[in-house]
Amino acid sequence: MKKIAILGSTGSIGTQTLDVIRAHPQQFAVEGIAAGSNIDLVTEQALEFRPRLVSVATRELADQLRSRLPQEIVVHYGDEGLIEVAAGTDADTVVTAVMGSMGLPSTLAAIDAGKTIGLANKETLVTAGHIVTEHARQKGVALLPIDSEHSALFQSLNGEPRERIAELTLTASGGSFRDRTREQLREVTVADALKHPNWSMGAKITIDSATMANKGLEVIEAHWLFDMPYDRISVVLHPESIIHSYVEFVDTSIIAQLGNPDMRVPIQYALTYPDRQPSPSSRLSLAQIGQLTFREMDEQRFPCLRMAFESGRLGGTAPTVFNAANEIAVARFLKGEIPFLTIEDVIADALEQHEVIAAPDLETIHEVDRLTRARAASVFA
Amino acid sequence: MKKIAILGSTGSIGTQTLDVIRAHPQQFAVEGIAAGSNIDLVTEQALEFRPRLVSVATRELADQLRSRLPQEIVVHYGDEGLIEVAAGTDADTVVTAVMGSMGLPSTLAAIDAGKTIGLANKETLVTAGHIVTEHARQKGVALLPIDSEHSALFQSLNGEPRERIAELTLTASGGSFRDRTREQLREVTVADALKHPNWSMGAKITIDSATMANKGLEVIEAHWLFDMPYDRISVVLHPESIIHSYVEFVDTSIIAQLGNPDMRVPIQYALTYPDRQPSPSSRLSLAQIGQLTFREMDEQRFPCLRMAFESGRLGGTAPTVFNAANEIAVARFLKGEIPFLTIEDVIADALEQHEVIAAPDLETIHEVDRLTRARAASVFA
Repeated sequence: MKKIAILGSTGSIGTQTLDVIRAHPQQFAVEGIAAGSNIDLVTEQALEFRPRLVSVATRELADQLRSRLPQEIVVHYGDEGLIEVAAGTDADTVVTAVMGSMGLPSTLAAIDAGKTIGLANKETLVTAGHIVTEHARQKGVALLPIDSEHSALFQSLNGEPRERIAELTLTASGGSFRDRTREQLREVTVADALKHPNWSMGAKITIDSATMANKGLEVIEAHWLFDMPYDRISVVLHPESIIHSYVEFVDTSIIAQLGNPDMRVPIQYALTYPDRQPSPSSRLSLAQIGQLTFREMDEQRFPCLRMAFESGRLGGTAPTVFNAANEIAVARFLKGEIPFLTIEDVIADALEQHEVIAAPDLETIHEVDRLTRARAASVFA
Repeated sequence: MKKIAILGSTGSIGTQTLDVIRAHPQQFAVEGIAAGSNIDLVTEQALEFRPRLVSVATRELADQLRSRLPQEIVVHYGDEGLIEVAAGTDADTVVTAVMGSMGLPSTLAAIDAGKTIGLANKETLVTAGHIVTEHARQKGVALLPIDSEHSALFQSLNGEPRERIAELTLTASGGSFRDRTREQLREVTVADALKHPNWSMGAKITIDSATMANKGLEVIEAHWLFDMPYDRISVVLHPESIIHSYVEFVDTSIIAQLGNPDMRVPIQYALTYPDRQPSPSSRLSLAQIGQLTFREMDEQRFPCLRMAFESGRLGGTAPTVFNAANEIAVARFLKGEIPFLTIEDVIADALEQHEVIAAPDLETIHEVDRLTRARAASVFA
C-alpha cells in the first residue's frame, strides 16, 4: 500500500487526488493532508481518509479542527504544519498542490525527506527550478508531473533518455479569446472571461490561458523537468485539447499522449507510477471526436508566451519576475483596474526594469518576488 | 557495429533497409542479403555493401552473380540459400522482408539461430503465429515489427507490460475506394485501382487496402505480436495516416505514434532498437497538417475486415485460409477474371468450406494454403 500526503487537499488538484485514492482503497492510504482555511471540507476529508496528520492555515483553525476530529489525528498549522505534512510522515509520495510561493519550501522539505513528488505547484519549478531539480537529483527523488501537459510529455518519454529527444511540444487550447484579434482584445471585459464555459478552472487560470501566460509557465516547467533547452520546446495551438502534448525523437518519430481532459488521469499516473491502474475517467473515442485541429502558435498574437520564453532563456530571477508580475496584473484586470492587454504591459515593464540575478537562492527569489509584486501593483494605474 | 542480414533485399522494404544502413555507415554492417531474380540490383547492392553472403532464387542466377562479384562474397541460391542468409551469418538482426509463405521457414531458422528479427513478412505471423511466437519465446528472441502500424504500437507500448493495455487500435487510411458506397464498388475496374496515387505501394497491397483485407491481416499480426485478444484490438479510419496506431491503457491514457508516412522510420527503429538515431525522414509539423480526422470503422462496408477478425478468432488454420483465398482473389481481380466485390465472396467461400485445424504444424499450414489456393482459383468463374 502506497502512502500519500497531500499539500493543498481542499483545492481542485487536492480533491481530485482524494477522488483517485477513494477509487483505489486497496492501493493507497492517506498519511497527511494540509489545507488552508476551508475547515468544513478538511474536516470531512480527515474523517473519511483518517490521515495521521492534518494541517491548516492558522492556530485558530487548528483549534476548531481538533474539536471536530478524533484524538488520534494530530493537527498542526501554519508554515510549520505544512512542512510537517510534507516531510514528517511515512508518506512515500507527496502531492504538492498548494497555490503560490508557499509551495516551494514545503516541496523542498519533501524532497529532502526523500519523498517522491507529485508536482502540481507551478512556482516550484518556475521560480526555483535550478534549486529544486538539484535537490531532487542529489536525493535521487522523482519529480512526477501532475499537470496534464507535463504528464503527457512524461508518459510519451516513458524513460527514453534525453539525448534521443529532438523537441518537446506543448499543446495549447488557445483559451477563451483564441479567435479574437488583438484589436478585439482591447475591448475584453472581466464579464467576458466569466462567461466562458472554462470558468470552472478558476479566474486566474482562465485569464492565463487567454493571454497564453499559463503556457509560458508550462514551457519553463518543461525546461526544468526534462532538462531541455528552450529552443527545443515549442507550443502548438490545438483547440480540442485531446493530444495533451508530445515528444519528437531524433528519428522524427513522434509519441503523443491523448485522452479526454480529466485531471484525475495525470494525478493517478503520478500516484501509481510506474504502474497504471483502472481509472473512473471516460474512455476517449477518436471516431466520436471526429477531428483534431492544429495551428501554428503566433508570438505576435500572444506576447506573454514570447516573454515567458525570454525570461526562461534569461534564467536566474527572470521567470520569478514574469510569474509575479503576471499574477498581480491578472488580479488587477479581474478587479477592473486595468484593461486586458495591459496585463502584457505590466509584465513587459517588470522584466524591463529588472536586473537578472543568476542562480538566486530562496531568499533572493522571495525578495525579487516581493519587489516585482509591489511595482506591478502600481504601474499603469 | 550492428550486423544485419536482409531477406528480400531488392523489394521495397529491402531497399529502404539498405537506405537506412547507408545513412549510418558507422552503426551498421551488412552480413548477408537474399533476393529473388533481380540480378542487376542485387549485384549493385553486393558491390556497395560487401556482405559476406548473397543468395538469389536459382542456381543459374547464382552462377551469373558469381561472375560479377569479387571472390570473397559467397553466393548461394534457392530455399537453402535463403536459410543460409537467415541463420548462417554473424548477423545480430535479420530483416525478414521476403514476400509470401517462403518467408516462414527462413524466419524460423533465424529465430532458432538466436537472431533478433525485424519482421516485415506478413505470412510469418498470420499463418504460423503460434509457432513463431513460441520459438521466439523459447529462444528469448525479440520480434521487432517493421510494419508502420505495428511499429507504432510497439513504440507506444515502449516496454509497458500487457496487463496495463486496455486496447490496441490500428489506424486505416481507408484505401483508394474509401468514399465509395458498396453499390459503387460493383463498378470498380482494375484501371480505377491503377489510377490511384498510392499505386506505388504495389497492386496487391493497393487492393488489400481498398478491401481492408490488409488491415485484417494486420489485426491478426497484432494479436500475435502483442499477445492481445481480438476483442481488444480495434480499427479506426484515419484518412491522413499521420497517427500510425495507438495503445489505450487501463487508466484511459492513450499513447500514439505519429509521423509522416515513411517506412524508413519503422525500419530504422527495428535496427537501432532500443536506441534511436537521426533519420533522413522529414519532420512532421501538425500545424502544417492542420487537421487529423477519424471515422468509425464499418464492418458492413468492409466485410474483409470482419472475416479477418472471424478467422483470427477461429484460430488454427483459419487465418491461413483467409490469407490464401485473398491472395488468389486479388490476383484474379487484377487479371480481370472477377469483379471487385467477388474478392469477398472468394474469401467467404474458402472460410465456409474449411474445417479449422487447431494448432497446425508447418506441413499442415502449407497443405491448407495449397488447397485453399486451388479452390479459390476456380470458384465464381
